[in-house]
Amino acid sequence: MNDSTPSPDAALVSLAVSTVVFALRADSEGESASLRLPLVRRIREPFNGRWALPGGPIDPTEGIERAAGRHLFDTTALSPTYLEQLYAFGGIDRSPSDRVVSIVYWALVRSEEAELAAVGENVRWFAADDLPPLAFDHNAIVEYALWRLRTKVEYSRIAHAFLGEIFTLTELRHVHEAVLRRALDPANFRRQMESSPAVIATGEHLSGGRHRPPRLYRYNGSVELTDRGPLSP
Amino acid sequence: MNDSTPSPDAALVSLAVSTVVFALRADSEGESASLRLPLVRRIREPFNGRWALPGGPIDPTEGIERAAGRHLFDTTALSPTYLEQLYAFGGIDRSPSDRVVSIVYWALVRSEEAELAAVGENVRWFAADDLPPLAFDHNAIVEYALWRLRTKVEYSRIAHAFLGEIFTLTELRHVHEAVLRRALDPANFRRQMESSPAVIATGEHLSGGRHRPPRLYRYNGSVELTDRGPLSP
Repeated sequence: MNDSTPSPDAALVSLAVSTVVFALRADSEGESASLRLPLVRRIREPFNGRWALPGGPIDPTEGIERAAGRHLFDTTALSPTYLEQLYAFGGIDRSPSDRVVSIVYWALVRSEEAELAAVGENVRWFAADDLPPLAFDHNAIVEYALWRLRTKVEYSRIAHAFLGEIFTLTELRHVHEAVLRRALDPANFRRQMESSPAVIATGEHLSGGRHRPPRLYRYNGSVELTDRGPLSP
Repeated sequence: MNDSTPSPDAALVSLAVSTVVFALRADSEGESASLRLPLVRRIREPFNGRWALPGGPIDPTEGIERAAGRHLFDTTALSPTYLEQLYAFGGIDRSPSDRVVSIVYWALVRSEEAELAAVGENVRWFAADDLPPLAFDHNAIVEYALWRLRTKVEYSRIAHAFLGEIFTLTELRHVHEAVLRRALDPANFRRQMESSPAVIATGEHLSGGRHRPPRLYRYNGSVELTDRGPLSP
């Protein structure tokens, strides 16, 4: 074949989108924050009752990123500023009933935004490193997203996405701990960051009634927020 | 929607694959090598007669990467060791006749492998930075691939893919020149590489009848050949 015209068989391969939304959240008071993501319980076959990534089919009149955003909003009420394309998953056995290729998007959101999610019987946040068996190949998709986050995304971008422009060193340490999956010594971490040219004290302090309010920091230089390069949204 | 089951409309979105194969090649004797890629002339509508990336539809029984490899081999006789997923392009207006989402793969190949391509009236290598208007959004796809190559892939990986394990500093300079799109001063480049811990002299020389055969070099440490992470091929 030397063109992109689909064969008569092509309609037998259908296309879906799914989205992995990571936030840095504590499960309950006092617990340390970890990478968490919202999942949606399936209410039909295949995999009826199992948890799955928010997603669904693409309408012929909408872009694929827009379809991903629509399904995410419809099920979780989340509406991240950026959705970035992660990977297309097309294993021939990923769905038992038909052949579906899923184009997966991802986003990192702040805990304030994560709070806005519609949580209920069929939508819940899960620890990304401790998932039940999900529908389709969604466990493998989350594993791939975690690998990308942990090996390919700079701390500056992760911190910006989870914390915003300005943060305390304690907040930044929680980001590093969630990515590294281990506790870091607070004093060592503080020394390391204070001697790094990448992180700069703003001169401001966290407001609040404390005796010694924590200093606020920012990253030095601009932070690349997404990885889409020359593609316009 | 909270599942991945396609709606009745989903079949109206069809799926295709395309592949961008970059090689470092001179167009003719004496010319400096540049990034080049094979294109295939379309022999049907839409875009009949225009050049396009090798590609086509996916059969329901084959993986998407396998489909990309099959179309590439069928049109160009090229069979790269690795195809890496680049991006899924799904703009609603990218095809005038129907809605097609294209999952694009890419590969970097050595000039010996590029020589094996079936070149003819309907298959030809083009300079990646100087393309005619291509079919569909293929110009934008090549532009995106160039951006990824130039900003996201390490020189060690590019050199390994284009040159192999062992190379002369002149060959390595041609790689840097092609990526940077400008000529580099040979003496400066040699000094810079010889003082870099990343590039190591093997102690061997290029074989051949020359009076002063060039020294051979390799990268220090292992080179990550693809970016697929925990996904098995």
